[in-house]
Amino acid sequence: MEKRNVYMDYSATTPLKGEVLDAMMPYLKENYGNPSSIYSKGIESKEAIKQSRTKISRLIGSKSDEIYFTSSGSEADNWAIFGALKGNGKHIVTSKIEHPAILNTLSYLETKGYDVTYLDVNESGLVNPDDLEKAIRDDTALVTIMMANNEIGTIQPIQKLVKLAHDKNVLFHSDAVQALGNIPVDVNKLGVDMMSFSAHKIYGPKGIGALYIKEGIEIENFVYGGGQENGKRAGTENVPAIIGFGKAAELAMNCLKEHVCHCLDLRNYLADELYAAVFDSHVNGTMLDRLPGNLNVSFDYAEGEAILLMLDYMGISVSTGSACGSSDSVPSHVLTAIGVPESRIHGTIRFSIGCFTTKDDVDYVVKAVKEVTKKLKELSPLK
Amino acid sequence: MEKRNVYMDYSATTPLKGEVLDAMMPYLKENYGNPSSIYSKGIESKEAIKQSRTKISRLIGSKSDEIYFTSSGSEADNWAIFGALKGNGKHIVTSKIEHPAILNTLSYLETKGYDVTYLDVNESGLVNPDDLEKAIRDDTALVTIMMANNEIGTIQPIQKLVKLAHDKNVLFHSDAVQALGNIPVDVNKLGVDMMSFSAHKIYGPKGIGALYIKEGIEIENFVYGGGQENGKRAGTENVPAIIGFGKAAELAMNCLKEHVCHCLDLRNYLADELYAAVFDSHVNGTMLDRLPGNLNVSFDYAEGEAILLMLDYMGISVSTGSACGSSDSVPSHVLTAIGVPESRIHGTIRFSIGCFTTKDDVDYVVKAVKEVTKKLKELSPLK
Repeated sequence: MEKRNVYMDYSATTPLKGEVLDAMMPYLKENYGNPSSIYSKGIESKEAIKQSRTKISRLIGSKSDEIYFTSSGSEADNWAIFGALKGNGKHIVTSKIEHPAILNTLSYLETKGYDVTYLDVNESGLVNPDDLEKAIRDDTALVTIMMANNEIGTIQPIQKLVKLAHDKNVLFHSDAVQALGNIPVDVNKLGVDMMSFSAHKIYGPKGIGALYIKEGIEIENFVYGGGQENGKRAGTENVPAIIGFGKAAELAMNCLKEHVCHCLDLRNYLADELYAAVFDSHVNGTMLDRLPGNLNVSFDYAEGEAILLMLDYMGISVSTGSACGSSDSVPSHVLTAIGVPESRIHGTIRFSIGCFTTKDDVDYVVKAVKEVTKKLKELSPLK
Repeated sequence: MEKRNVYMDYSATTPLKGEVLDAMMPYLKENYGNPSSIYSKGIESKEAIKQSRTKISRLIGSKSDEIYFTSSGSEADNWAIFGALKGNGKHIVTSKIEHPAILNTLSYLETKGYDVTYLDVNESGLVNPDDLEKAIRDDTALVTIMMANNEIGTIQPIQKLVKLAHDKNVLFHSDAVQALGNIPVDVNKLGVDMMSFSAHKIYGPKGIGALYIKEGIEIENFVYGGGQENGKRAGTENVPAIIGFGKAAELAMNCLKEHVCHCLDLRNYLADELYAAVFDSHVNGTMLDRLPGNLNVSFDYAEGEAILLMLDYMGISVSTGSACGSSDSVPSHVLTAIGVPESRIHGTIRFSIGCFTTKDDVDYVVKAVKEVTKKLKELSPLK
């Protein structure tokens, strides 16, 4: 088997598309003006940011001035939560399978006297709308439930959940970092008040994210200082990254259908082939309501980290559990929440497929996984 | 007079040095791995970040793990202030000429029950150490005084001020965004507990800054989530920008002496020539204790904005007052604090010189300013 480099961790981060880098280059070179400056070189940057904001707003169906740039999806999540708590209420509702940027922010708030309800999910990773309805109290300030999960790809019925929150006059935030560019995201249709995004998950640059804040919703600033981001988030704008985010959003919008089909086809092919090749494998989560490029599989008799490292040796990049905390050995809170037994959680690999993945890549990965899991099973005392 | 493009607003932002962009390129292309991933592609990014942290720590004389990356100098300022207030004390001391990232954060805190003392400065822009000593109270939680001012370039006697704060067991933070790369910055010699930096002021990329936090100083996190930045500031690292920051720091360290001489020579030449060419001009601040590249000049009978726009037309980029808030017409709080009369503040231009400025640039700017101020004086009803 000839060695091949296969990146199959698009949920962790994506390479820049060539067109995105091309769009950024002038802003890394001659167009370096500070957008706050009122001479031509500054106005040039300011205008470019404006166009980028418009491109992103088109992708999510918002108004352009409802987009606030942040430095990451995590920052957007933190801002949404901290910003929404203006002493109105001391209770927040979330799900058990949120990203650490949500869960760790809420844990911190618990130490400051806030009360948090963590909704259970079923074996598919879905929140039960009835549970949300019951959880909302008079002092609930915010509901924050992610649109699509980063480990198992589960897509929540956000529109329905938002309606329940709004019926009780509670703000709704959703982390859509994994959803954007992979499924349609229309903030108006969904009805969310705030939504978090990140460029580097959609073939844009690292270091730039955005928070959608619906017109009329007032939240506190995140960074105080200059007048950037309509006076709500200070700091000289990361112009090249903003331009890259805009370009990535434009491309995502233009190719969404093809992208979904491409990822779905290859993901399903991967699932089928893996199932056929490795007897002791189990897909976690549901094959419905799932991000097109996501596949999360547990292998009996093998440690995920061992699989990962052996695949890495063979040129393949995949992840165990969540990419963002992949160096800790605490069992995934997401897999725990959907009822995967701990022994199986430790043998889990997340494959995430993206626009540069090919059928040959999948074939190579399947062969490699078959070989690796076979070796590990031979070594396992559990078999 | 042949038209020429002259950028003389290095305090607002700087172009990327070619070597910096070269260092970043691989991380904008093939080395896109998420540093949290444990396969080779991730480790590559993680290692590169580590080296960058070391380069920056060398420039400021700190340990490598005392450097925490942020998305901007403003974020670093916000973090230092919010992070240091852990309910210990309700009083903060600062100066009247801080950057908006400090002043607006403190204004916000005043609405939350904090008490802030704003120290006066003299006509050079210097804080009087005696004033600081008197201002510190039993409930003072933090002193935050900038190292070098962004409008008039005044360099504060930080070492002395830190000693006074530490004698009373009070934490000291300093915004060194304008100082870094332009004068020696040695955190150990200065004795500061926290210090803010920004890459795009030292020929590095926008979208990346850093907060130095002295070992042993515990402050609260700024962004909760993944384990990045030693668990204190979550969000996928902006790898290309971090690499660029590291390279810019390395270059700044290697060429600091030459850079200072280059800027000083040209700045003093500009000051002399302007003084000779424009009778009604007045340098604000002191020519001692001043950043080498900074010159802040008020012109009688001319609005700063008019000068700026006419110079822009002639290919020259300069700023009125502060670059970060250059589009508002509120008179500069810095010039107000050093006693410049309001009428004169409105006729102020900040020239900031950097490593790509040449003597020909200065000659061109002087001629242009002479022409422009002459025209504006002719139109002025005040002359």
